[in-house]
Amino acid sequence: MHPYFAEVLGTALLILFGNGVVANVLLSKSKAENGGWIVITLGWGLAVALAVYVVGRVSGAHINPAVTIGLASIGAFEWSQVPGYILSQIAGGFIGSVLVYLSFYAHWEETEDPGLILACHSTSPAIRKFGPAFMTEFIGTVILVFCILALGKVALGADSTQLAWTTAMGTWFGPLLVGLLVLAIGLSLGGPTGYAINPARDLGPRLAHTILPIKGKGSSDWSYAWVPIVAPILGAIAGAQLFVYSAL
Amino acid sequence: MHPYFAEVLGTALLILFGNGVVANVLLSKSKAENGGWIVITLGWGLAVALAVYVVGRVSGAHINPAVTIGLASIGAFEWSQVPGYILSQIAGGFIGSVLVYLSFYAHWEETEDPGLILACHSTSPAIRKFGPAFMTEFIGTVILVFCILALGKVALGADSTQLAWTTAMGTWFGPLLVGLLVLAIGLSLGGPTGYAINPARDLGPRLAHTILPIKGKGSSDWSYAWVPIVAPILGAIAGAQLFVYSAL
Amino acid sequence: MHPYFAEVLGTALLILFGNGVVANVLLSKSKAENGGWIVITLGWGLAVALAVYVVGRVSGAHINPAVTIGLASIGAFEWSQVPGYILSQIAGGFIGSVLVYLSFYAHWEETEDPGLILACHSTSPAIRKFGPAFMTEFIGTVILVFCILALGKVALGADSTQLAWTTAMGTWFGPLLVGLLVLAIGLSLGGPTGYAINPARDLGPRLAHTILPIKGKGSSDWSYAWVPIVAPILGAIAGAQLFVYSAL
Amino acid sequence: MHPYFAEVLGTALLILFGNGVVANVLLSKSKAENGGWIVITLGWGLAVALAVYVVGRVSGAHINPAVTIGLASIGAFEWSQVPGYILSQIAGGFIGSVLVYLSFYAHWEETEDPGLILACHSTSPAIRKFGPAFMTEFIGTVILVFCILALGKVALGADSTQLAWTTAMGTWFGPLLVGLLVLAIGLSLGGPTGYAINPARDLGPRLAHTILPIKGKGSSDWSYAWVPIVAPILGAIAGAQLFVYSAL
Repeated sequence: MHPYFAEVLGTALLILFGNGVVANVLLSKSKAENGGWIVITLGWGLAVALAVYVVGRVSGAHINPAVTIGLASIGAFEWSQVPGYILSQIAGGFIGSVLVYLSFYAHWEETEDPGLILACHSTSPAIRKFGPAFMTEFIGTVILVFCILALGKVALGADSTQLAWTTAMGTWFGPLLVGLLVLAIGLSLGGPTGYAINPARDLGPRLAHTILPIKGKGSSDWSYAWVPIVAPILGAIAGAQLFVYSAL
Repeated sequence: MHPYFAEVLGTALLILFGNGVVANVLLSKSKAENGGWIVITLGWGLAVALAVYVVGRVSGAHINPAVTIGLASIGAFEWSQVPGYILSQIAGGFIGSVLVYLSFYAHWEETEDPGLILACHSTSPAIRKFGPAFMTEFIGTVILVFCILALGKVALGADSTQLAWTTAMGTWFGPLLVGLLVLAIGLSLGGPTGYAINPARDLGPRLAHTILPIKGKGSSDWSYAWVPIVAPILGAIAGAQLFVYSAL
Repeated sequence: MHPYFAEVLGTALLILFGNGVVANVLLSKSKAENGGWIVITLGWGLAVALAVYVVGRVSGAHINPAVTIGLASIGAFEWSQVPGYILSQIAGGFIGSVLVYLSFYAHWEETEDPGLILACHSTSPAIRKFGPAFMTEFIGTVILVFCILALGKVALGADSTQLAWTTAMGTWFGPLLVGLLVLAIGLSLGGPTGYAINPARDLGPRLAHTILPIKGKGSSDWSYAWVPIVAPILGAIAGAQLFVYSAL
Repeated sequence: MHPYFAEVLGTALLILFGNGVVANVLLSKSKAENGGWIVITLGWGLAVALAVYVVGRVSGAHINPAVTIGLASIGAFEWSQVPGYILSQIAGGFIGSVLVYLSFYAHWEETEDPGLILACHSTSPAIRKFGPAFMTEFIGTVILVFCILALGKVALGADSTQLAWTTAMGTWFGPLLVGLLVLAIGLSLGGPTGYAINPARDLGPRLAHTILPIKGKGSSDWSYAWVPIVAPILGAIAGAQLFVYSAL
């Protein structure tokens, strides 16, 4: 399988499981309605772990433009492949959202609040102040990228001297560690902004929300869309630099 | 142990734990009453993992006719054994349901809503539209079979060139990965239909619901019974084909 | 460390964590009050896993007279050590209960319902019918012993021909598998009786409830005490025989 | 990386994830508000596991003065490094708290109860009686240190004759076992005092609460501050001695 297609597939699985769990908990008449934060965060954590299990040994399962750019910024990934990876991730995010739309087909028109329908696609801040939301997304992605680099070393073993990311994600426990990390970020830092920490996770589904004929949908809130794109990219670069600087 | 008997045993354990957790959460006066979606999905995920641990190295622990047919459709399982496996799985589902009936013996007559009693046996759609329910079950089983094939390769190691399913399920972490997958499907896609994604999981217990002298039971809702049989079988074939086509 | 002392220690840890989580969720003013069934079952599952991690390679970490008798009934444990193991387990259960008493010292008098105080020690049926309660405890222990024997084989590896229980519980994942099994039993079958499935888990703390000067305590309900003793022992023997008969 | 800096980093991650999850659940308008005890305890358990994964092979990831003193008290750590470790841990706790402050920047002024704001920093007893609170913290830390020493041996393998803590925490499952232990302590014993069991976890953030310009904050409750310092240190020494005495 070509790595670009692996990124499409991996990001589609990420969004199917990830936005799926949001739809499951938020949409009216779902048997999982009001399942709570533990359901949402565990669903997203498993979404990451499973996507990485499935495509990790092919493409490294970045499934996140911030991770791709972060790795490239420290020489752990080829810049020439960055545009292809990012386009694949956004396409995967869009496809995943279409699958969520189909999986919950009867539930959209039963849901009165258009804000809940948007939340099954893209993130929004709990308190509508873009500065603090930017800071939360920035810190979250610093932690994400710093820690996955450290976990990648754990997966490769104590003697590894270089960061062979695709090898690390091809082990049987590397993907599990990354899933636990995203679970932890959701549990601990997810409340203010819904923890996008991934531009493709937010942009792909927001495009789908705009395009798909979802019954009962409202605004796609494009005014906020730049925050979960710019903050994660800057945070990923900062996190990757910190990791190199720390000499861990 | 003969593989057919392993499928009976594995599916009985699946249903005892799986429908057990539904009964535990839904039946009146149970100490777990209103335990929520996290309890139900974790219970089903562990039901799968434990059943696969117990019989995986004997029969591969399909415990699901859709998995059996999906594997056979890509040459990873002998067609000649398909009927024996499926009959064993349905029998196991029936036996598991009888054990749930006995385990919660005093609670059936305390439960007023016959819909809750049926839910401890078979699935039903949250919104009574069979087309969308069919689509949800179809997508769920595509994902199930596609991903377990990928996880089977992970369990076998990166160098495996053939899909030795029983070997994969005889490792110590293969069953755990499959359990995590079913947990994820429940968390993310389970709300619209209760995620049967397994004809034996639905049919065996529906037969038990019809036959057993459960106090307070109502209709067994046979009009819906074809959906969680046909959709998972078609989805499993599609998922297995997609996996072969993807060359993962 | 002598195996008898390991059983005292292991069972004390089991009850400290296990009855601790019940106290944490049930007692008034605890920060974990109303934490729900997921908290209780995860607490008990980890209680088992940790106790087995700590003493598994010394004594096999039966920490349950039913397990001890079940193993002995199929020749996997010496009958001559059975009385010493059982007395150690009951003593450990008592000690664990004393530690729970001290850990929640200020909360007993704040709790008005004496039934909740007893529930932090011993089990009781959700519906007061001893026949069904006996059946639930019997089935639960059949499953417990049958499955831990199968999981022990998984921990020992596919080629093992004998059941070296202490070796299995000295691996790093054997204890985890046993903990996941007890978590599953609690999630799926725990509602009718509180899943004692262990005579020492019920008897040791019931003795402690009778003896300790707990403020606000009521009856120790000795009339029910035989059920979580007799049913688990019979269930364990049946489960062990079934395992041998199954030739798994 | 110097071990002292690893302790700063590890403790900062511990507090960012750990106090982050408290803020996520308690602060007004957070999407995780009222997420419950399962969210809080799982967040803290993962906080420990991830911090140990990141810095375990560098410094052993004590991230807790009680652990440092406990290890030193049995000859498993150099006394000469104890002051440097402890100061690093307190500094890390302070830094982690600053990151929580920034991550939830818009939520502090929305939260009316200053007690909730303090709870996002330091612990307090559920019932204001310092003797029982001291006993709970003491027992919790005895269990923490006794069990992590036993788990360290499990991580090192059955044949290890000495306690090479940093080696144990450099394995891929050692950190996971320690995280599961802290999860269990929180689930089972966390209700009366909020389970500090770590002087740096309480003191560093209490300093931050005093110094930072948090909108809506109240008293930092310094009168209680000695309990989560003294009780864990004494408990750690007792737990370490018990472990040596037990000859496990």
